[in-house]
Amino acid sequence: MNWEIWISTTAGLLAILYAVYIAYRISRIRVKNKNVNEIHKAIKEGARAYLRSEYAVITVFIIGMAIILGLAVSWWSALSFIIGATLSASAGWFGMEIATTANARTTEAAEKSLNKALRIAFSSGSVMGMTVVGLGLLGVSLVFMMLSGEVGVGNATGLIIGFGFGASSIALFARVGGGIYTKGADVGADLVGKIEEKIPEDDPRNPAVIADNVGDNVGDVAGMGADLFESYVGSIIATMALGYVSLGIIGVMIPLGIAGFGIISSLVGTFFVKTKEEVKMSNLLWALRKGTLSAAILLIVLSFIYLFYGIPGGLGVFLAIASGLVAGIIIGYTTEYYTSEDYPDTKLIAEAGKTGVATNIITGISVGMRSTTIPVLTISGAILLAYYFSGLYGIAIAAVGMLSTLGITLSTDSYGPVADNAGGIAEMAGLGAKTRKRTDALDALGNTTAAVGKGFAIGSAALTALALISAYMKATSINAEQLSIANPLVLVGLFIGSGMPFLFSSMTMRAVGRTAERMVEEVRRQFKTIKGLLKGSAKPDYARCVEISTKHALREMITPGILAIVTPLLVGFILGPLSLGGLLVGATASGFVLAVFMANAGGAWDNAKKFIESGNLGGRGSTAHMASIVGDTVGDPFKDTSGPSLNILIKLMSMVSLVFAPLIISMHLL
Amino acid sequence: MNWEIWISTTAGLLAILYAVYIAYRISRIRVKNKNVNEIHKAIKEGARAYLRSEYAVITVFIIGMAIILGLAVSWWSALSFIIGATLSASAGWFGMEIATTANARTTEAAEKSLNKALRIAFSSGSVMGMTVVGLGLLGVSLVFMMLSGEVGVGNATGLIIGFGFGASSIALFARVGGGIYTKGADVGADLVGKIEEKIPEDDPRNPAVIADNVGDNVGDVAGMGADLFESYVGSIIATMALGYVSLGIIGVMIPLGIAGFGIISSLVGTFFVKTKEEVKMSNLLWALRKGTLSAAILLIVLSFIYLFYGIPGGLGVFLAIASGLVAGIIIGYTTEYYTSEDYPDTKLIAEAGKTGVATNIITGISVGMRSTTIPVLTISGAILLAYYFSGLYGIAIAAVGMLSTLGITLSTDSYGPVADNAGGIAEMAGLGAKTRKRTDALDALGNTTAAVGKGFAIGSAALTALALISAYMKATSINAEQLSIANPLVLVGLFIGSGMPFLFSSMTMRAVGRTAERMVEEVRRQFKTIKGLLKGSAKPDYARCVEISTKHALREMITPGILAIVTPLLVGFILGPLSLGGLLVGATASGFVLAVFMANAGGAWDNAKKFIESGNLGGRGSTAHMASIVGDTVGDPFKDTSGPSLNILIKLMSMVSLVFAPLIISMHLL
Repeated sequence: MNWEIWISTTAGLLAILYAVYIAYRISRIRVKNKNVNEIHKAIKEGARAYLRSEYAVITVFIIGMAIILGLAVSWWSALSFIIGATLSASAGWFGMEIATTANARTTEAAEKSLNKALRIAFSSGSVMGMTVVGLGLLGVSLVFMMLSGEVGVGNATGLIIGFGFGASSIALFARVGGGIYTKGADVGADLVGKIEEKIPEDDPRNPAVIADNVGDNVGDVAGMGADLFESYVGSIIATMALGYVSLGIIGVMIPLGIAGFGIISSLVGTFFVKTKEEVKMSNLLWALRKGTLSAAILLIVLSFIYLFYGIPGGLGVFLAIASGLVAGIIIGYTTEYYTSEDYPDTKLIAEAGKTGVATNIITGISVGMRSTTIPVLTISGAILLAYYFSGLYGIAIAAVGMLSTLGITLSTDSYGPVADNAGGIAEMAGLGAKTRKRTDALDALGNTTAAVGKGFAIGSAALTALALISAYMKATSINAEQLSIANPLVLVGLFIGSGMPFLFSSMTMRAVGRTAERMVEEVRRQFKTIKGLLKGSAKPDYARCVEISTKHALREMITPGILAIVTPLLVGFILGPLSLGGLLVGATASGFVLAVFMANAGGAWDNAKKFIESGNLGGRGSTAHMASIVGDTVGDPFKDTSGPSLNILIKLMSMVSLVFAPLIISMHLL
Repeated sequence: MNWEIWISTTAGLLAILYAVYIAYRISRIRVKNKNVNEIHKAIKEGARAYLRSEYAVITVFIIGMAIILGLAVSWWSALSFIIGATLSASAGWFGMEIATTANARTTEAAEKSLNKALRIAFSSGSVMGMTVVGLGLLGVSLVFMMLSGEVGVGNATGLIIGFGFGASSIALFARVGGGIYTKGADVGADLVGKIEEKIPEDDPRNPAVIADNVGDNVGDVAGMGADLFESYVGSIIATMALGYVSLGIIGVMIPLGIAGFGIISSLVGTFFVKTKEEVKMSNLLWALRKGTLSAAILLIVLSFIYLFYGIPGGLGVFLAIASGLVAGIIIGYTTEYYTSEDYPDTKLIAEAGKTGVATNIITGISVGMRSTTIPVLTISGAILLAYYFSGLYGIAIAAVGMLSTLGITLSTDSYGPVADNAGGIAEMAGLGAKTRKRTDALDALGNTTAAVGKGFAIGSAALTALALISAYMKATSINAEQLSIANPLVLVGLFIGSGMPFLFSSMTMRAVGRTAERMVEEVRRQFKTIKGLLKGSAKPDYARCVEISTKHALREMITPGILAIVTPLLVGFILGPLSLGGLLVGATASGFVLAVFMANAGGAWDNAKKFIESGNLGGRGSTAHMASIVGDTVGDPFKDTSGPSLNILIKLMSMVSLVFAPLIISMHLL
């Protein structure tokens, strides 16, 4: 084995140790306020209960799929699959645990100092970030070493794909189920609380408020973590598989080395995250940005030294990596541009609401749609450059480049829901105005970082999917020439693929709608039957709402999940591997655009509302404000359920196709 | 020349004679009621004024483009271009004239009999239908004969593409400008009238009511006509070009023959349109359906005889045609299923409104998204079958098959806005409840036929675009193998193409939003400054609103229009003909899905509102009703501006690429 695998193993281990240490430090902080403690425990319990049930469902699926894999492909593949699934689930669990621990600590720290609160929230985010990359890279490295020893390096690059498939499967359920959970609860809480009863967000009288806060953790922490765990390992694995075919063993080692350097850079970056005491958005944003930018620069330096001096002809690979990294940054900033109230587009949505709800919605959709253009051109540019510098391998390694500093980018991302929860707890526990002003600032920042994180997640998903598709072509021995869009089988696959993201989004949107409708009924029932609830003299039955979210999220995640796995198999077995190739490309292109549209429209609606609430256009209670509340509610499933779920759809379909490629080549109808 | 061209010439002429005769008969009917006459004249004047200004703008464009074509491609191509543009514009003008003549006659006929009203409205629709196919087929036939005489048959099939490009250019401006006009006025009228002042639709006190009714004619009649004129001639021309290369002269003649038989079948079909006197939706629908189905059956019989007995090996071509025809019918019925209140999905949207606006919107988007699946599978099936039976030529001739009975399908389609106008006039002129009940029935039917027509328009647009893309490949001598999605240039083109429809829709949506905002301001101003307007003692200034719509529609149609023409050229000249091929396929796939989504979501929102207004879920004034009004308003630009404009986008981009193919091959950067 080359030295790169020791770098990757060591870096993975380091990341885990860092995460454990920080988690330990956070959990050592004592929560003093009794109210805060109680609320935070309720959130933690709800989140645990949900993840436990979710994992129970997933376990059944994992065992079933492992048996199919073992029988149809190989038992080594089945084993990789189980390990990948287990590590992804562990990362999700660990991240959720620390997020629900840190929320209360952030709230209390905000009573004293903005900087302290930021540090705690960000630290807990970095636990999630480091756990994901640590478990991901360590897992890939160890499984690859094990498989290489058993079946040789070449076969190992094929069998380790099972690891990625395992990660994908967990991601599917975590992202879709978590997304339905969080938005079903959120929309349900808002529809009755804000619109019917006119009580504020996170008001303790709202029976769905705990479910809403639980949702942030199971959706935006555990779901997002699983999503990016999948992208991360998926891109590495796809590059390894392609690399072995085109460059030999060194092609396998480069992604491991780069990922290792990425972790080291991310660890260094976390130390740069600090802010001044003044509550100012630009200070806070800069604090986080210092972290991500310094990590990116360090990675560029390390990988240049490694590839330019260490690998003959490594410059092309380096430039491909740099293309991916820069593309990720551009997509992230574009997202910020379109979804931040500091820029004209979000303001336009807020303005449009002056003539009512309909114009707010129409403008939001219009802004979301046009926000896709720059990301499309950026990804296109990255593809062309990466290919120019390093061929198909270049496209794959560009994805690795984009994701290599995930340790820190995911930290800033997971920071969001912790800050959001901290604000919610402050509101529910009735802490002072000063504290809430601080948590509000942290929360607003969280919205921006969450939006940027989503842009990043979808960008990396598209590149990862393309890397997987390239690996799929190698695996099916499809010639480039055969995959012509002039071939009607490919063309038809492409059409079906383009349609898939719409059907999938329809299902997830509707699932949120249905869950929210149940939640509305329950919340209305409690307001009607529990006397004194609105006056604050009686307590609502939070647990019942948590139960509804849990039950519905678990039930609703099944059908879209099956669709994502079964469609590529059906197309592959009926129309053959060429149609399947078309399907994957079509779904990736259309899914990418649709996901960016949905995520950005949702983010822009959310911040348009915040813009009005901070006193513009007549402020709270104005026509524009009422319109913006509806816009925000429509945007909720866009940005937190359907949009992000598309990342999984495009990656998972590619992964399924890759894993079952041997079977599909040997038998298909057309 | 073969006998087929005489069939097509004769049939084209017959269709025109029929149209002129029917138009003469309708215009002979006298309008007795003074109010009705006055309102209808205002609508006619507004529509004429708009089309005149629109044509003035277009003329500048046409002359400029003809010069470019003449210099860069060929003066014969420029001449075809001008003829195609002129005929398309004439068809639009003639159709609009008769529609604005027939609306008042339909209103007055409805005072006496439902059947009479239906006959007049449908007859005027058939004038539009027959004018479009008549001018289209006659034009193609004559221009082709002329060119063949001058430059030979082979070159003629290349140069006649200019004719299609001319039609495309008119379609672009007519569809986009008309769409912005109609929905800017409609949304503006509704926002103030229905929501703020609580006066009914089409109330004469609303200053924007005439503009709204004008919009139906310039958007849904002239715009829709130009759209389908383009599809019709585009599919015929593309098939001729492909046919000459693959089958020789007979390949050129078949589409002309089939189109000729299609016109004859459509003419026969119109005689089957009759209904009983009882006001029942199913009766009315069946009356129209008898017409379209009998035309389809007759065409099947005629083309079977022609191809099976007349052409050696013609059976494959026949089966390809049948695939196209059946696919068109399936897509039409699917649209009806998803947008009619008789089926569960539209009811679901209405139901969801019980928990407010947000759930109505979310559910509408979800229904629209899932309504894309069957059309995608249908088009895919048609592509595979047509190719299996007859190769790439099969895909092209399938488009001809789908469009061959356009004479009658467009009749049922253009019937919609006439019935809609008739209802509006009845309301404004204050006619009795019985009359309005009849016009309401006609209008409701019009919504369904309009929705079906939209499904049909987008289905045919996709097949036509594919036919044009095949012709583009022949023209650029691109080998099938080169157009591989594994080639990053093609892949990047595909990504950019997938993004295009989103950017284009964003522009058209925003244009409607902007126009509506101006309209809202004007309507509010009139209600404020004109004393006695709300009481009905003073008359509003209708002309001012008509002027605003006209001005904005003309201004707003420019940028999306330029985008559609310039993007393929930019991609072609910079990234080269392979990327451009990818762009066209990507835009067709993504545009098709997005267009179906938008058209169906819009139709479903509209009918969900009608479902509630007919007394369900609490009827008018209920929460569900208020929610459904907002949903309908959001859906307006979806179904009447952005969705249908995508048809043009995908066809026009293919047409531009095809026309400029010689230039692009000879010079491009990458």
